[in-house]
Amino acid sequence: MTPKDLRQQCRNGLWTAPTAGLCDGFVQCNIVAMPAAYAADFARFCQQNPKPCPLIAQSNPGQVAIPKLGNEDIRSDCPQYKVFSYGKITAEPHNIIDYWQDDWVFFALGCSFSFEESLLAAGVPVRHIEEGANVPMYNTTIRCEPAGPFQGDMVVSMRPMTPSQTIRAIQVCSRFPSVHGAPIHFGEPSAIGIRDITRPDYGDAVEIRPGELPVFWACGVTPQRALIEAQIPIAATHAPGHMLVTDLLNAELAIL
Amino acid sequence: MTPKDLRQQCRNGLWTAPTAGLCDGFVQCNIVAMPAAYAADFARFCQQNPKPCPLIAQSNPGQVAIPKLGNEDIRSDCPQYKVFSYGKITAEPHNIIDYWQDDWVFFALGCSFSFEESLLAAGVPVRHIEEGANVPMYNTTIRCEPAGPFQGDMVVSMRPMTPSQTIRAIQVCSRFPSVHGAPIHFGEPSAIGIRDITRPDYGDAVEIRPGELPVFWACGVTPQRALIEAQIPIAATHAPGHMLVTDLLNAELAIL
Repeated sequence: MTPKDLRQQCRNGLWTAPTAGLCDGFVQCNIVAMPAAYAADFARFCQQNPKPCPLIAQSNPGQVAIPKLGNEDIRSDCPQYKVFSYGKITAEPHNIIDYWQDDWVFFALGCSFSFEESLLAAGVPVRHIEEGANVPMYNTTIRCEPAGPFQGDMVVSMRPMTPSQTIRAIQVCSRFPSVHGAPIHFGEPSAIGIRDITRPDYGDAVEIRPGELPVFWACGVTPQRALIEAQIPIAATHAPGHMLVTDLLNAELAIL
Repeated sequence: MTPKDLRQQCRNGLWTAPTAGLCDGFVQCNIVAMPAAYAADFARFCQQNPKPCPLIAQSNPGQVAIPKLGNEDIRSDCPQYKVFSYGKITAEPHNIIDYWQDDWVFFALGCSFSFEESLLAAGVPVRHIEEGANVPMYNTTIRCEPAGPFQGDMVVSMRPMTPSQTIRAIQVCSRFPSVHGAPIHFGEPSAIGIRDITRPDYGDAVEIRPGELPVFWACGVTPQRALIEAQIPIAATHAPGHMLVTDLLNAELAIL
C-alpha cells in the first residue's frame, strides 16, 4: 500500500485503525489544526520547543494540502482525529470536515516512528515493537517554553536499552532533529518528575531488563497537552497512533 | 608557544614536563615506536581496535618525521619517553636517540586532549580539568582483538557527567573518531570489570557528584598495556601526559 493509497482508504472510511508499521520508509506526522488566530502563537510554541514539537510543515490559512507532504486533504487524510474545545476532547471523528473553517491552519510535526526505523536498521532493538505494544509515555515536570495560550509540561516516550545501545541510539537519533532528535534524558526517572516507571501515563508498560536503563525522548503528545492547557474554542489533532502518512521518505529527514 | 617551538624546547632539554594545556587547538598524540618486524602486527592491532588505538599517522621504517604531523624528529619531539623491553619498562629518557634503529616505525595515535577541548567549547564541564588533576583511568575486562603478539584488555578514561551532559558529550565526541570517538560505556562500572570507581589504576580519582554518572572512553594507555603483554625485545612510547604536540589542528580531525 502506498501512502497515497492509504490516505485514500482513510478518506473513504476503509481504514480507521492505527498506522504503525504501515508504508515502511515513509514519514508519518503528528497533526495539529486550529483557526488562524491562534496559529502564530502555536508556530512560536513549536519554534521554542523543537524537541517535543519538531515542525516539518505548516499550511497557509485554509490550505488543506502541502506539496512537500504530498497529502490530498488534511481533513480526511488521517484514519482518526481528536477535536478539542476549551480544554476538553469533544469528539474523535474519522474526518474533521464538519469542523474545518476557511481560515484553519494545520501543522505537521515529526513522529518517533521515523527514528525507530533507523534504530532498528542500526541494530538497536526497540522493546515496545518487540512486545507488540504501544510505546510507554510519561508526563514530566520539564516545563515547555510558553507561547501565547500554549503551555504545559513535556511528555516523553521511553525505550529501555543497555548503555552501549543508548550511545548508538544517541548517534542515530542526532541525525534526525525533525523527528525529536537525540534523547533528552536516561536513567533516573525521578530526575524529570516521573514517579513510577512501571505506570506510563499513555501507552503500554514495557519490560526493563537487568543491565538496561530507561531512555527518554521528547514526545509528540506534548502539543496535545499544550492544546488542553490553551483552552482555545476549537482545534483538532490526529488521534494517537492514527498519523498522517506522507510521501516524504524518512531518509530525506536525515541532516547528515 | 607554537608546537614547533615546544618540540624544539623538548629537543634541547628545555621542556621536560607534561604537555596538558599547551598549544591550544593543536592535536597532541600518543606515540608508539618499534622495530619494523613488529610494525605490521601493531598496525593491525590498531586497525582492529580503533577506539583505544585510533591511528592518525604511521611512518615508513626509519622515517623520523611525518609531513602530516609537522614534526621534526620523533626521537626527541616529546618531553619524555618510556622504553619497553620484554614486557618491562627499562628506561624513561627524555629522548630515544640511543635506542632508535634504522628500521624503526613510529605510530601517532589520537589523544583525549583533542575531544576535551571540544567538550569544553560545547559547555560540557570536564571534572579532572576543573580539579587540576590527571584524568582517572581504569583497567577493564573488555578484551582487545589480538594481532600477532599484541593483546590485552582495554584501558578506559572516566569523566563524571549528568545524563544531559552525557548525551551532548556523545554527540560532540562522535565527530572525532580519530581521538577515541564516542564513549564506550556509562553508568555501572562493574559492567566493564571495574571494581572500585574511587581507585583508578592510573591518574587521579575525581569527585562524582549526586546526579552524575561515570562516563567511560577508550584510552590511549591501552597500547602501552598491549606492548607489555607483547614482550617484544624493544619498543618505546611517549611517557604518559608527555605527548607529541603536532602541527595538526583539532578542528581538522572533525569528520563533520
